[in-house]
Amino acid sequence: MNNIPEPLIFKKNSLLILDQRKLPFKEIYFEAKSYSDVKKAIKDMILRGAPLIGVAGAYGILLGIKKRFKLENFYKMKDELLSLRKTAYNLNFTLSRIEKLIKKGASYGDLLKEVNKIFGDEKRRCELIGRNGFKIFKKYRRVLTHCNTGKLATGGIGTALGVIYKSRKNLEHVFITETRPYFQGARLTAYELHKIRMPFTIILDDEASFLMQKGEIDAVIVGADRITSDGFVANKIGTLSLAISAKNFGIPFYVAAPISTFDLKLKGISNLPIEERVGKEMKGWGKSRWVPENFNTLYFSFDITPPDLIEFYITDKGNLRKNEISKVQVL
Amino acid sequence: MNNIPEPLIFKKNSLLILDQRKLPFKEIYFEAKSYSDVKKAIKDMILRGAPLIGVAGAYGILLGIKKRFKLENFYKMKDELLSLRKTAYNLNFTLSRIEKLIKKGASYGDLLKEVNKIFGDEKRRCELIGRNGFKIFKKYRRVLTHCNTGKLATGGIGTALGVIYKSRKNLEHVFITETRPYFQGARLTAYELHKIRMPFTIILDDEASFLMQKGEIDAVIVGADRITSDGFVANKIGTLSLAISAKNFGIPFYVAAPISTFDLKLKGISNLPIEERVGKEMKGWGKSRWVPENFNTLYFSFDITPPDLIEFYITDKGNLRKNEISKVQVL
Repeated sequence: MNNIPEPLIFKKNSLLILDQRKLPFKEIYFEAKSYSDVKKAIKDMILRGAPLIGVAGAYGILLGIKKRFKLENFYKMKDELLSLRKTAYNLNFTLSRIEKLIKKGASYGDLLKEVNKIFGDEKRRCELIGRNGFKIFKKYRRVLTHCNTGKLATGGIGTALGVIYKSRKNLEHVFITETRPYFQGARLTAYELHKIRMPFTIILDDEASFLMQKGEIDAVIVGADRITSDGFVANKIGTLSLAISAKNFGIPFYVAAPISTFDLKLKGISNLPIEERVGKEMKGWGKSRWVPENFNTLYFSFDITPPDLIEFYITDKGNLRKNEISKVQVL
Repeated sequence: MNNIPEPLIFKKNSLLILDQRKLPFKEIYFEAKSYSDVKKAIKDMILRGAPLIGVAGAYGILLGIKKRFKLENFYKMKDELLSLRKTAYNLNFTLSRIEKLIKKGASYGDLLKEVNKIFGDEKRRCELIGRNGFKIFKKYRRVLTHCNTGKLATGGIGTALGVIYKSRKNLEHVFITETRPYFQGARLTAYELHKIRMPFTIILDDEASFLMQKGEIDAVIVGADRITSDGFVANKIGTLSLAISAKNFGIPFYVAAPISTFDLKLKGISNLPIEERVGKEMKGWGKSRWVPENFNTLYFSFDITPPDLIEFYITDKGNLRKNEISKVQVL
């Protein structure tokens, strides 16, 4: 895990952000020198992953507040940041911690300490998720995961990928869905597993059901961008389809997430915000295009998986059944 | 439909093949001057679609036999052609028709007439499929289809897309899955619907379940590459996942195919040949690459959908329930 570059490094006057658009081919950093740079990095997916967005946004606030330490400035930035990737919940969680401190009249030094602590907390939560997940995953041999939920998404060992990491001695093989359209599975998860020398195979998102039918998959584990108090999970588009297929073939389906992903004010499916991104992101890659500008596309970045398809929520507070979520102490 | 270029044009000494790899941006023909050129065109997916492969292979035989009219030459070519895209059944169907004639001592002229008739039959079957499908599809407004099953896959109005074409006055909207990794949906089906001015939206394969959950889809219709006598359907990878999701949300799922796709000797799932293609086809597009050479991939081109997920088989011999398939007269 140590040979995977740090996805975020805070310097005195800037935030170094590993440019995830360039992986797995190039390991280069984007230097965010201002709050606006951080905003751009989140919007353009230079970094992604709900826990990491939460941390990066908090560092962005630090860069912004250093210039103009005013409460109204904080609120403006908070609103802007929360509008960028509206499904991911963790940023709400981290910004509310900062808000509390600012209201108490904290200094810049206090805030810096708090944000560093927020980042440290996220990493520790991954560790706990990994340990809790191992209790379940030690019995599996071949698992499937979707998107990227590793160090690149969290700064720590990861959520779903943290469970896989902690279970690596028992696991024989990891199947990774490529995860259209941004290829977080094919590019980022494969890159991480390659670095830690775990045997993996990248498959098309469409192949998952077929491998389940063939009996090649023992369990499925994914991360989450937001979880409601009654257990609905917003996660990378394609998660719902995997969960339905897993249920169909009697394969257990797990969601791994830190408590910073749980939006306990929300209940049910109807108020869960689902980000829609611009269609051009699915029309090509690099300089290659396969769909013309004028062809109509629709790109929801996330979908919603209902609780009856989920075996356990593997969290830093334990492995929860759906009815146990609302009882968890988040702060 | 007339403004969509012909996918195959047989000239005296060559077969003009519309290069489907270049669509929707360029409408150019690859001129196959020999049997080997046709083989290359099928293998490299210059053309695709089970019915069209069946016809193109037959014309390939003509080009080969013109040079050397011997039975053993025919058998060599037959074996080679059938090994190229082993899931698609229609080529078996058309080659057995040619074989019969050759055994009877037919001349080149007789064979040419037969292959032209084979192509004409395929087009007529599409017409009948379209009419039969309309009886069911006239009641739907928003349908989803996968891959490409139109003129580009058949030479006629298409199978699943033929049903959509015949129902176009009643349908409001067609959702097209992009269909990884070759983008037959995003490139070819979208191109065809654009040409006939039908409203469509390209979605990620992973988005289909989410749209079903949101109540945006009334019915799903796909084509087939091979259907067993007990109703198992080999079709483009991703079909199984769509069928499972449709069942989960109570949305009817239809398969449209000519009788030349029915392999009535086969029963069950275990003997259905599933083509595995080289992984590099899922690692990039054009000059762009997103997965390194040394990362392990697995690319099954097709999957198998069981009969209990299929409402009707829409064929040129009527709309069949699974138990009616084995009773159909194929020849």
